[in-house]
Amino acid sequence: MERTPTATLLLSGPDQKGLVAGVSGFLFHHHANIVHADQHTDHEEGVFLQRVEFELAGMDLAPGEIAAAFGPLADGLGMVWALRLSAERTRAAILVSREGHCLIDLLARWKIGELDMEVGFVAGNHPDQGDVTRYFGVPFRHLPVTPESRAEQERELRRALVAEGIGLVVLARYMQVLSPGIVDAYPNRIINIHHSFLPAFAGARPYHQAYQRGVKVIGATAHYATSELDAGPIIEQDVARVSHRDTVEDLVRKGRDLEKVVLARAVRLHLEDRVLVYGNKTVVFD
Amino acid sequence: MERTPTATLLLSGPDQKGLVAGVSGFLFHHHANIVHADQHTDHEEGVFLQRVEFELAGMDLAPGEIAAAFGPLADGLGMVWALRLSAERTRAAILVSREGHCLIDLLARWKIGELDMEVGFVAGNHPDQGDVTRYFGVPFRHLPVTPESRAEQERELRRALVAEGIGLVVLARYMQVLSPGIVDAYPNRIINIHHSFLPAFAGARPYHQAYQRGVKVIGATAHYATSELDAGPIIEQDVARVSHRDTVEDLVRKGRDLEKVVLARAVRLHLEDRVLVYGNKTVVFD
Amino acid sequence: MERTPTATLLLSGPDQKGLVAGVSGFLFHHHANIVHADQHTDHEEGVFLQRVEFELAGMDLAPGEIAAAFGPLADGLGMVWALRLSAERTRAAILVSREGHCLIDLLARWKIGELDMEVGFVAGNHPDQGDVTRYFGVPFRHLPVTPESRAEQERELRRALVAEGIGLVVLARYMQVLSPGIVDAYPNRIINIHHSFLPAFAGARPYHQAYQRGVKVIGATAHYATSELDAGPIIEQDVARVSHRDTVEDLVRKGRDLEKVVLARAVRLHLEDRVLVYGNKTVVFD
Amino acid sequence: MERTPTATLLLSGPDQKGLVAGVSGFLFHHHANIVHADQHTDHEEGVFLQRVEFELAGMDLAPGEIAAAFGPLADGLGMVWALRLSAERTRAAILVSREGHCLIDLLARWKIGELDMEVGFVAGNHPDQGDVTRYFGVPFRHLPVTPESRAEQERELRRALVAEGIGLVVLARYMQVLSPGIVDAYPNRIINIHHSFLPAFAGARPYHQAYQRGVKVIGATAHYATSELDAGPIIEQDVARVSHRDTVEDLVRKGRDLEKVVLARAVRLHLEDRVLVYGNKTVVFD
Repeated sequence: MERTPTATLLLSGPDQKGLVAGVSGFLFHHHANIVHADQHTDHEEGVFLQRVEFELAGMDLAPGEIAAAFGPLADGLGMVWALRLSAERTRAAILVSREGHCLIDLLARWKIGELDMEVGFVAGNHPDQGDVTRYFGVPFRHLPVTPESRAEQERELRRALVAEGIGLVVLARYMQVLSPGIVDAYPNRIINIHHSFLPAFAGARPYHQAYQRGVKVIGATAHYATSELDAGPIIEQDVARVSHRDTVEDLVRKGRDLEKVVLARAVRLHLEDRVLVYGNKTVVFD
Repeated sequence: MERTPTATLLLSGPDQKGLVAGVSGFLFHHHANIVHADQHTDHEEGVFLQRVEFELAGMDLAPGEIAAAFGPLADGLGMVWALRLSAERTRAAILVSREGHCLIDLLARWKIGELDMEVGFVAGNHPDQGDVTRYFGVPFRHLPVTPESRAEQERELRRALVAEGIGLVVLARYMQVLSPGIVDAYPNRIINIHHSFLPAFAGARPYHQAYQRGVKVIGATAHYATSELDAGPIIEQDVARVSHRDTVEDLVRKGRDLEKVVLARAVRLHLEDRVLVYGNKTVVFD
Repeated sequence: MERTPTATLLLSGPDQKGLVAGVSGFLFHHHANIVHADQHTDHEEGVFLQRVEFELAGMDLAPGEIAAAFGPLADGLGMVWALRLSAERTRAAILVSREGHCLIDLLARWKIGELDMEVGFVAGNHPDQGDVTRYFGVPFRHLPVTPESRAEQERELRRALVAEGIGLVVLARYMQVLSPGIVDAYPNRIINIHHSFLPAFAGARPYHQAYQRGVKVIGATAHYATSELDAGPIIEQDVARVSHRDTVEDLVRKGRDLEKVVLARAVRLHLEDRVLVYGNKTVVFD
Repeated sequence: MERTPTATLLLSGPDQKGLVAGVSGFLFHHHANIVHADQHTDHEEGVFLQRVEFELAGMDLAPGEIAAAFGPLADGLGMVWALRLSAERTRAAILVSREGHCLIDLLARWKIGELDMEVGFVAGNHPDQGDVTRYFGVPFRHLPVTPESRAEQERELRRALVAEGIGLVVLARYMQVLSPGIVDAYPNRIINIHHSFLPAFAGARPYHQAYQRGVKVIGATAHYATSELDAGPIIEQDVARVSHRDTVEDLVRKGRDLEKVVLARAVRLHLEDRVLVYGNKTVVFD
């Protein structure tokens, strides 16, 4: 689907009168046509967040001039802001281990245009997913890791992320814990899929935990990685019913379907600049 | 929960640049604090719709002056608009037949403050729900109907609606078809609950139809009544899984839970002025 | 709906060949017509569980003779078993505090025949729900409690449970923790509704916890009470989507709908003898 | 996961006393260990259906002898029956058109062992999915079709189905209507995915229909193909919420996720002999 070039403004800051009027007045003044707009006020925290997407055609500002023109207004209103151009596609890297269901799902969606990104590379600490990655025309990097080589492996990964200009890292069932160094270097730029309905069953083997507890519903959670394991801002969650008839293997199978769809939704929302983080929470302008 | 008095503007009209800027500029100019705002553009139809809720305190206009001040702006933009004050509570009438599950559910929610309305009366073509209605402190009108008395019964109903200043009619499993006369007199002011996932199984005995077809999911649909049966704008729908183990009685039982919650959600959304109708569709600003 | 009198056998024990053949052979030998049968084998634990419901009409055993005839067979197979006659309705007591949404929901379902039980009494540590209880024709006992009077209040409750022949206690948002003494006296006979998706957000104020964590899905859990708080066997769970637009009050409101329906389902499943407990888990033969 | 060889008996017929006793007695007599058993009585139709899966190890009958030994019993009880051995894997063919999301999803599941089948071939009336099919190691047959060549194309398809010993045909978004000749030749052996919640929006372009109607929930339906279009026995359905914010393209995207998962579930249920058809309905022993 051919889309007209747009820009998206993401804003957040202390709530006050005149925010919407200020932003919309700026856009109207420069002849921008708003195609989508959404805002949210957290009245408890006194925080205002806004996402405005507008067409570039017809504006009296070139794309490269918008930021300079908008900056003083936003600064005057005390807003943190970012400008994203639809023409600048995010470059993503996907990390995997042995299991490929999330990876294949992401690549298949990407191939039919569902995910608006470039895939710089796929990296795996196991070689299993190399073939399918290459089938989709994406370079695969095998980055094996042992307890001894962990620091060096991560340095190699970071070099690759930088060299490839990666702006989004997707942990597609990557079964290694990233060190704080790399996590802190990509704030709200690393999306992980946890195979449970967080905060229930954080940590290892959540389906076994769920089976032991006898729950009637299982879930999956996509969240931004933070240095605290499984505790980052939640982007998306979904659940599925289970019963006593489901073995651990059945939970794992049903869980794969949840993991695929929840991770894919989170990646798409991120790529479309629909996720704003404040505190440890997200606003998702879907 | 005590809430600060607010006003809500509902607007719709042909999409064009400057709509958001115009409305938000007006509110900012008059020192209004926006507490909720949402908008939607149907790019296919070229229609723009907006809902803005703002606090009255601090404005330089009295509540009664807002409409006169806003009118010229909206007219200039070609918008259809309405202004609703939170202080003016909607007066509702609820119509029932023999089954009371939706009625009791609505009255119980209303009693604990979940539905911000006044209940002028409950009317039933059967007397069954009189006791529970009176328990909740609401007048009950028994309006029996036969094929011969149908026109007269409806005239009596309309007189009651007018006399009581009713602004919303809720058909809580009212098993009579209202005539076009009364439906047309309350456009987008009569909410019906249909016990199926429309457009599947319109008409009578939908659970029996669903059972015969062997569906694996059943649903319920709340919609505004129009003169075409079961074809009005859909406000809310929800579904539940069923299996071969469910008898027709089980479908009816599961359906009651759907009907209650779907109707209550639709009524609440309507009372909070979150539903805008255009064409035969709704925009629900939840 | 008039139903033909039935008996239900509930069996559990170590898995072995011949269990189904033994039970079904016994029933066939005595001319019983099986109307529902379900079984489950937990292959990991080596446990077999079965529920068989059969019509009494046509059998060559009187209802009172079945147990004596079946006992030797079950004992020979090493099965724990129980026999329930549909004619013997469970007598239930419902405990509440201030909030009545679950109570009213249960009473309304009971009144239209959805829950096949007798309601011995409703008891509340606050008087708020007395009126509605009496409206439904059920005695209300006000059992106020202070830290000092807690032991005495519970003794009074236990006396009432015994005096009224109560076989099922439903905690319909009863905000007091029952002591181990009363919990242990009613094993798998006390159903609690916890207002979260356990094991997430156990303990107090779960909706506030959920709001703080920024989850995208909330839940409710009905479980048998055990002496360990919020850790008993789970009977039923359900969930609802939430978003950043939902305040804590919205979570509480959406949660009420979950609590009502999850608790009502659990009570119905229990009353129909569809829940078998083994270890800390349930098998639900729905 | 290595599984012990089992056999599965599928039975259906007029309900009568002694059916369960007869079947379980037979299995016990021949030292079979039942691993799963489920049954259902449609009391309205007076139909009994049963699925019993049992281990072959330890029986005093060879796999090839079971049918001959069981036949007289089943015939005496008036039951229609079938015996399936887990060692005999179903050979499937998958038919596609241009869109590959269901195909890739099925092949990816099959590759990791989620679907216990052999894939004889994939056939497409367009060549688009040839590459990915071959990547998964499966032969691809390009069977183009024009209005003139339709009969000949279908003859070629039927020859291929016969030559390859195909026992299951999966229509994975195959946008051609099969003729009654081929449908009738594979009764309950052709699974189609329809991209709506049937019976709503049967026929062409269901997402456009759903968009026009303004529904708040969309669905997908997997069913056995019959000569009446979109009217065959439903195996599985699922739904997703949508809102006014969803364009037709969004419905199509959300629909793809439904189609994939609903079709995959239906295929798995079929392969595990969990689906019994009677009348125009299914019993799904999950």
